[in-house]
Amino acid sequence: MAHLPDHLLKGYRNFMTTRYPGERDHYRSLAREGQAPETMLIACCDSRSAPEVIFDSAPGELFVVRNVANLVPPYEPDGEFHSTSASLEFAVQSLKVKNIVVMGHGRCGGIKAALSPSSPLSPGDFIGKWMSLVAPAAESISGNPMMTPIERQTALERISVRYSLTNLRTFPCVQILEQKGRLSLYGAWFDISTGELWAMNNATGDFERPEFD
Amino acid sequence: MAHLPDHLLKGYRNFMTTRYPGERDHYRSLAREGQAPETMLIACCDSRSAPEVIFDSAPGELFVVRNVANLVPPYEPDGEFHSTSASLEFAVQSLKVKNIVVMGHGRCGGIKAALSPSSPLSPGDFIGKWMSLVAPAAESISGNPMMTPIERQTALERISVRYSLTNLRTFPCVQILEQKGRLSLYGAWFDISTGELWAMNNATGDFERPEFD
Amino acid sequence: MAHLPDHLLKGYRNFMTTRYPGERDHYRSLAREGQAPETMLIACCDSRSAPEVIFDSAPGELFVVRNVANLVPPYEPDGEFHSTSASLEFAVQSLKVKNIVVMGHGRCGGIKAALSPSSPLSPGDFIGKWMSLVAPAAESISGNPMMTPIERQTALERISVRYSLTNLRTFPCVQILEQKGRLSLYGAWFDISTGELWAMNNATGDFERPEFD
Amino acid sequence: MAHLPDHLLKGYRNFMTTRYPGERDHYRSLAREGQAPETMLIACCDSRSAPEVIFDSAPGELFVVRNVANLVPPYEPDGEFHSTSASLEFAVQSLKVKNIVVMGHGRCGGIKAALSPSSPLSPGDFIGKWMSLVAPAAESISGNPMMTPIERQTALERISVRYSLTNLRTFPCVQILEQKGRLSLYGAWFDISTGELWAMNNATGDFERPEFD
Repeated sequence: MAHLPDHLLKGYRNFMTTRYPGERDHYRSLAREGQAPETMLIACCDSRSAPEVIFDSAPGELFVVRNVANLVPPYEPDGEFHSTSASLEFAVQSLKVKNIVVMGHGRCGGIKAALSPSSPLSPGDFIGKWMSLVAPAAESISGNPMMTPIERQTALERISVRYSLTNLRTFPCVQILEQKGRLSLYGAWFDISTGELWAMNNATGDFERPEFD
Repeated sequence: MAHLPDHLLKGYRNFMTTRYPGERDHYRSLAREGQAPETMLIACCDSRSAPEVIFDSAPGELFVVRNVANLVPPYEPDGEFHSTSASLEFAVQSLKVKNIVVMGHGRCGGIKAALSPSSPLSPGDFIGKWMSLVAPAAESISGNPMMTPIERQTALERISVRYSLTNLRTFPCVQILEQKGRLSLYGAWFDISTGELWAMNNATGDFERPEFD
Repeated sequence: MAHLPDHLLKGYRNFMTTRYPGERDHYRSLAREGQAPETMLIACCDSRSAPEVIFDSAPGELFVVRNVANLVPPYEPDGEFHSTSASLEFAVQSLKVKNIVVMGHGRCGGIKAALSPSSPLSPGDFIGKWMSLVAPAAESISGNPMMTPIERQTALERISVRYSLTNLRTFPCVQILEQKGRLSLYGAWFDISTGELWAMNNATGDFERPEFD
Repeated sequence: MAHLPDHLLKGYRNFMTTRYPGERDHYRSLAREGQAPETMLIACCDSRSAPEVIFDSAPGELFVVRNVANLVPPYEPDGEFHSTSASLEFAVQSLKVKNIVVMGHGRCGGIKAALSPSSPLSPGDFIGKWMSLVAPAAESISGNPMMTPIERQTALERISVRYSLTNLRTFPCVQILEQKGRLSLYGAWFDISTGELWAMNNATGDFERPEFD
């Protein structure tokens, strides 16, 4: 028999009876015309930081990549399978998004793992290898006895957003389009314990509460 | 100055004024206790198929990986960076999720690209390489002149869900836990033009409308 | 003695006591005036897809041809006995129907036979010959190991509807009247497992759930 | 856009809201288990003589062939496309029905055409050729000035039922199974002007009102 976990079926029924009726025409039009999102959002898999929830976004609004710790690896045209690079290429070259936002968040499990490396979870140690992308930064922080564990973690969460933005700029297509003013890059950090959203200052790299009009 | 695209700031303000107040305590508790999602959801980046929207899910409910065409590559413990495998390992080994759902969707741009391969979008051709995971299946479908383009695409979208489920079972941890009855795998397909959700029948691989109680 | 199978006698008695009294005058008038159905329906013999049931139709409403797999052979004025072509000619030329609907259905035994041809059922092999009408399409589908048996069957069921519609247009009378706007052709597919009716999009050939006013 | 004639959509909606809910489980079970009708019914395309209506039959009950004037051509294993013979073979050999009923009806347009042949409706003259199956009988009747037009027509309608039953017995599979007592053949005639059903007496060939228990 075809089935899904109960909580998903229940949730889907809620969606269909409450939200979908008002968006029916929009979904149909998006199916007919294709998607044309303005913004690509690179976020974490974490169950507490869903971009469409935090940004109350409509269908068709956000092209979303989610991996552990919202990391973008550096440009490596080596013929291997690169999930995140493929998504990036699709968003920039094919969908021609105008914005890319890398969003980190507080209490990130991946970042926490990077700060306290333990024995591998599996012989393949996929998560250890993946988080080794920010290993140099993690080492510079994890040995600092002056910072609290939360401070160390927040620091690395924000460093990793800047790291992903730096790597994004190693992709020729991103570099060129940003220089032409046709693509903008942003950093953000969501505090799951307070609901606060912090935006990165592009000039300084600092995270600040954004101002609303 | 710190800023974000206007549509995100506007959406965030909506979230904070409408949804967040009712979930404030839940977010706080999730921050304090850590996440413990029961379900990992592997979905597409597509802007029209957001899992948290379709399943009306609460914060903490879904651990979500999103890549182009919701693909899981086969198990390859080769020491490279594997975004999806790392997420999988984290969800299964560390968070100990009980369910993994692979959700495809209609009008998938990645699947469309797989059915009509054209010249690479970039020298690295990340998307071409990524979609080559389903190239054998795509070839078996793309040459069939009796099916309409939409029919070919739907067929490959569903094949790719089964393909990802097959690959999930190449990961030793998934295999072992499924055999022990501690992990369940599911397939789903969302029709963005009608809002219909189809669930995969685990016995046959067919997609059917799920029954509700 | 004159007799009929018991289940037919019992059913007929039900008809006479429940439905017929309310339609007595309509039957009389239809006998007196002759039939003038607006729609010809070409359906399968299958015991689970009766047009008058599915469309809750009144006497006089549908002129119905039923053969295995609802097939229309191509126009062949060769002087042989052509059951379906004769019915078509009678409906179009004599009754002047305005619509022709070809309705396929799920789990079609004829289509299943076409996908897995086995040794002939009889020396004449009437069913093998009849289903050979869709043999080229069947071959393009039956060898695809990526699709489930049900998916292959659904694909061929829909292809066969389009095939019959194409053949209908090889009949000069159909061609001419359709061009004059006096005859419309439609495709439909009934899912016997869910009761869902799918209508063919004439522009694309795709099957979609029809919209109701 | 996908659409169907309005009267069909309206009728389908009636079916889904009134009849289908009570038969949902039966349809599902029929989809899962396959059809196993006890009875094959060979009837006319006429819009006023729908077998499922007249016999108030449930889904899965009747395997129904419908062609103009409910004719069965003689057994001809010549490798041509034989719609009715293919249906017969499928019902008898594959579904193993226990009964075959040939049902004629009053005011049959095909029979009327056979009695008053006119210039062909098309160069192919499919209907003329089809009705020529009963041409010898028609000639023996049409020239009889002692019978009224309605009497001549009723006579030929009943002759044609006996003719089809005779032809059914030219099929080796029918002959053998009937001799073994595993297949029974019946004739019936429905009077659309009164709603009366007449059953053929197998011993005499006469049509009589069947007796009910």
